[in-house]
Amino acid sequence: MTLFKVEFLPSGKSVVVPQGTVIVDAAAKAGITIDTPCGRQGRCGRCLVKVKKGQVTEYESPYLSTKQIQQGWVLSCIAKVAGDLVISVPSKPEQVKLAGEIATTRKALAPHLDWPLSPAVRQLFIELPAPSLEDNASDFDRLKSAIASKIGVENLTMSLSLMQKLSQSLRASNWQANVAIDTRNREAHLSNLLPGRRKQPLLGVAIDIGTTNVVASLVDLSSGRIVNQASALNKQAACGEDVISRIVYSEHRGGVKQLNRLITQTINELLAKLAGENNLKTSDIEQMVVAGNTAMTHLFLALPPTYIRQEPYIPTTAQFPLVTAKELRIKINPNAFIYCLPAVAAYVGGDITAGVLSSQLFKSDKLSLFLDIGTNGEIVLGNSDWMMACACSAGPAFEGAGVSCGMPATIGAIEDVTINSNTLEPTVRVIGDTPPLGICGSGMISALAEMLDTGIVDKAGHILKAVSSQQSAVSDSRIRLGEHGTEYVLCWAADSGTGEDIVLTEVDINNLIRTKAAIYAGITVMLKKLGIPLSDIEQVLIGGAFGQHINIEKAIQIGLLPDLPWEKFQFLGNTSLSGAYNVLLSQQAQQQAEKIARKITYLELIADNTFMNELTAASFLPHTDSANFPSTKYHKS
Amino acid sequence: MTLFKVEFLPSGKSVVVPQGTVIVDAAAKAGITIDTPCGRQGRCGRCLVKVKKGQVTEYESPYLSTKQIQQGWVLSCIAKVAGDLVISVPSKPEQVKLAGEIATTRKALAPHLDWPLSPAVRQLFIELPAPSLEDNASDFDRLKSAIASKIGVENLTMSLSLMQKLSQSLRASNWQANVAIDTRNREAHLSNLLPGRRKQPLLGVAIDIGTTNVVASLVDLSSGRIVNQASALNKQAACGEDVISRIVYSEHRGGVKQLNRLITQTINELLAKLAGENNLKTSDIEQMVVAGNTAMTHLFLALPPTYIRQEPYIPTTAQFPLVTAKELRIKINPNAFIYCLPAVAAYVGGDITAGVLSSQLFKSDKLSLFLDIGTNGEIVLGNSDWMMACACSAGPAFEGAGVSCGMPATIGAIEDVTINSNTLEPTVRVIGDTPPLGICGSGMISALAEMLDTGIVDKAGHILKAVSSQQSAVSDSRIRLGEHGTEYVLCWAADSGTGEDIVLTEVDINNLIRTKAAIYAGITVMLKKLGIPLSDIEQVLIGGAFGQHINIEKAIQIGLLPDLPWEKFQFLGNTSLSGAYNVLLSQQAQQQAEKIARKITYLELIADNTFMNELTAASFLPHTDSANFPSTKYHKS
Repeated sequence: MTLFKVEFLPSGKSVVVPQGTVIVDAAAKAGITIDTPCGRQGRCGRCLVKVKKGQVTEYESPYLSTKQIQQGWVLSCIAKVAGDLVISVPSKPEQVKLAGEIATTRKALAPHLDWPLSPAVRQLFIELPAPSLEDNASDFDRLKSAIASKIGVENLTMSLSLMQKLSQSLRASNWQANVAIDTRNREAHLSNLLPGRRKQPLLGVAIDIGTTNVVASLVDLSSGRIVNQASALNKQAACGEDVISRIVYSEHRGGVKQLNRLITQTINELLAKLAGENNLKTSDIEQMVVAGNTAMTHLFLALPPTYIRQEPYIPTTAQFPLVTAKELRIKINPNAFIYCLPAVAAYVGGDITAGVLSSQLFKSDKLSLFLDIGTNGEIVLGNSDWMMACACSAGPAFEGAGVSCGMPATIGAIEDVTINSNTLEPTVRVIGDTPPLGICGSGMISALAEMLDTGIVDKAGHILKAVSSQQSAVSDSRIRLGEHGTEYVLCWAADSGTGEDIVLTEVDINNLIRTKAAIYAGITVMLKKLGIPLSDIEQVLIGGAFGQHINIEKAIQIGLLPDLPWEKFQFLGNTSLSGAYNVLLSQQAQQQAEKIARKITYLELIADNTFMNELTAASFLPHTDSANFPSTKYHKS
Repeated sequence: MTLFKVEFLPSGKSVVVPQGTVIVDAAAKAGITIDTPCGRQGRCGRCLVKVKKGQVTEYESPYLSTKQIQQGWVLSCIAKVAGDLVISVPSKPEQVKLAGEIATTRKALAPHLDWPLSPAVRQLFIELPAPSLEDNASDFDRLKSAIASKIGVENLTMSLSLMQKLSQSLRASNWQANVAIDTRNREAHLSNLLPGRRKQPLLGVAIDIGTTNVVASLVDLSSGRIVNQASALNKQAACGEDVISRIVYSEHRGGVKQLNRLITQTINELLAKLAGENNLKTSDIEQMVVAGNTAMTHLFLALPPTYIRQEPYIPTTAQFPLVTAKELRIKINPNAFIYCLPAVAAYVGGDITAGVLSSQLFKSDKLSLFLDIGTNGEIVLGNSDWMMACACSAGPAFEGAGVSCGMPATIGAIEDVTINSNTLEPTVRVIGDTPPLGICGSGMISALAEMLDTGIVDKAGHILKAVSSQQSAVSDSRIRLGEHGTEYVLCWAADSGTGEDIVLTEVDINNLIRTKAAIYAGITVMLKKLGIPLSDIEQVLIGGAFGQHINIEKAIQIGLLPDLPWEKFQFLGNTSLSGAYNVLLSQQAQQQAEKIARKITYLELIADNTFMNELTAASFLPHTDSANFPSTKYHKS
């Protein structure tokens, strides 16, 4: 065992540790605490330290910029000792600022292929013998023989529209053609036939249709390489912010058609951008896989979602038919198939099936909790033997809706807040380091945790009069009575990008509490139903777009996440997209997704008579029973 | 063995015969010859006799009118002795007149179901349990379970457009529905869902798309009963009379689309008529089966037929995809499937597959010759062990095209001609007993046979100058030099329905000879190829619309049909329609049709170096080698 000396600046304390010791652990040995709110996932940037001298192990992080790496910044929760070191630890305010820089360069986690590369669609180059009076099989029979001899599937089908072009195409290319073949359904379905050799790569696209955002990955099907990735606001947002308001809109005359048109348009524009940026043609996209919640998938397929909203919450279908792009007016190869990941129930959709697939929960020996916190909150508990899911109508507070200054996690959003416990003055970190425009989900969690910590709000979510009156003499008091009741000013109009104060009102706080309570109550009901103590959970897998930005420390402080050791938490990024990406590239993954959807037992919280009690109990900060949150200081109080 | 006495009037001759003797045989025993040109099929009506006293066996004939039956007329080629009888035999002229009356009441032979009733589409009435919070399966899953429990097929599919209406339909009908299910492809495909119980019968339609005529049978799928039947001129005729001219038309810009539009329109109008006459809705038609030649089927599916025309004569496909009515804009239930009978080759189409199915040749022990003489002539030779087919580009002469006064076999067409050998004056029989408008195929065969018999034409088809000059002094001579060469006048303008002479020119005769020679040469080449003597043929099965009207005696006389005993010939009516009808009503029949199409070996006459010689040899009346026609008097001369 090789030992190395690690010296920490500015204190000058040093320790001797074995090679391979993680730097935060070395620091702890030296009595220096470095926070790791993301659970040592290397994602929040709060543990950044600078290597002044010596070597740490190499590691991958999509978060640090090249400049930061050159300056010697390392994530101390991941980097390990590889030699004698001199390390400079920044002060807390410096750390917050650094983490802010990381946020501006933050990219979505790239999907990762966990399955053998075996997309449903493949291409073949075929050369057919020209027909003669002696060899006068039909064009289709000739093609069928050539394909059967290459891939061994005898039964060939193709759409009438492709068949209408077959005789010309084969002759125009002198009996040489590139064909795209979908072998998904026990038969070879020809989805494209191009004269001669195809010059462009065979492309596929994986899409996450979120209620708020739509993300698409353009993929080279022959290698699995992500050619391009982009996201866009779901244009349906104009017809309602959350799932319920979309469904209500769909019930107006022509509503389903209009919402379907909007999501189609969103996707077509996204595809055009993805392909255009790489000089590719969208018509070379030969396969598409979509993951979305049940309502979004219904609207994508123009299935009316009405009964998803009405008790007993019944979708038209949970297994969606394979449809052609032409049927949906999606501008890829019109004969290409679009596959939508199967749903479990009205509020546990294909995005969750994709999430369970991508999180690998379905094959884990560990008792795992999968959380997808987006416009809704969905929870899956289980392991390789069993899985149970429920949905909490969390509401879109964390996505910015129902919060006076709420906004999505884009440039200009306050994503972290620190409040000075003496002055009650906040320090905010803004995505893109610009004057703030509003506050996003992670900012709200952070603000709420700090307000609770500094006594600005009490356990019930009331902004405390005591604090308020104590400062009432000051005209520019951060705590004041606003138009909508008592509020706390996060940013004065003079400093904001909107020219108006950015505030968090008591109403906002109540919304946030309702949302976090719904999720926590869902977890509790499910655990009690199964008779499993919280501490048995071996890993918490956090998916969904919003999951990427959560600060675990603060999320536990407000009682959104259960109080488990940080190292049990893993952030998986956009698991909906990642699941769709895996299904796009692997027929085995598709089969597994279908198994997952069938295997998950759905727990209807509304039908559970303990849910309302648990919801009430969770509607405090962090919880009525602070014994559930032993790591927080509220437990001691 | 019971014996009965049969007396024949007016001669008064009588014989004693066993019970069950066919009347023509009893007459023969009495030395009285009764002609049976249709080969004892009870179809031509030339053998009609009147029962004055006593009883004959009951038999079915679609040809005799109720009045004729009440008057005691019976078909002596079918009716059998069932007691002592007194029978009046009409004179030859009377017989011709009687047969004419039959022609006016003649109906197409009704298709007959030879298979177990098992249509691909069936209907079920289902009642679903309403969903609840405890039983919250999706609408589609609920439907799937109900159907699986009724018919045992687990895998249910449906079109997206039907699924888009599913949630509303089920709720509107209080969870009771009538569904139409197609079980053709190893899965249950839901093609319709109607709230509550269906009030109309479940309908199907069988269609024969002929180059000239389109015939449709509207069928009650639950019983096989033909609800209504009608035919219409194929509107494509405006773009060319025969297959080749249609293909040429299709090669113009937009030609395929236009021809497709015309056949779609023809069928839609026919369906509206069929349904309307019975107060049914075409939307209740849940299944459609189509038989047509390869080019017609291509145009029906908007597949370009170009390469059917060009050597080496390759169709796009011979097995046609199952398509929805919506795709083809056929106005039945838009989600109903349309099945086209598979073809064998470019010139042996689904109509021939249907013909072989309907003729039962495919399961006969007898060496059989199947002939379909329509716009083209197709020939199938074989039995239950093997089958070979070829096509003769016969041309549409027998359908009236390329013949100056030619017309289809409809009201006003001369369908039989007798020429007095002394005066050379013709007697004509006209369909509908109206003043003649033209001459149809059977009339042409009859006229040509009589002209040959009376010496008006010689073996080479020339109208003889000798005869002509012999009568040249007579101004109203039947034989004269017309605008297009020598011609024979069948009907003077004064007696015709058109106000113009109805003639048969030497050019017409050459066209007819080319056509009949092509068919006969095809038969000869195929027999020689297989080394089978003509006399080995045990039965000649004649299908196709035109086949219904052929007079065997005269068709042999001109060398169109091979010189075989009359009793070997059977007229099967519209075998294309009948095959489609069987496939419509029986999945086993569909499977058999597919086997037939695969099993038939195609002989390409163009590629056969003996065909041109045989064609030349057959281009005489009846043939260069009259030894082939021993039964005709030309053999002796």
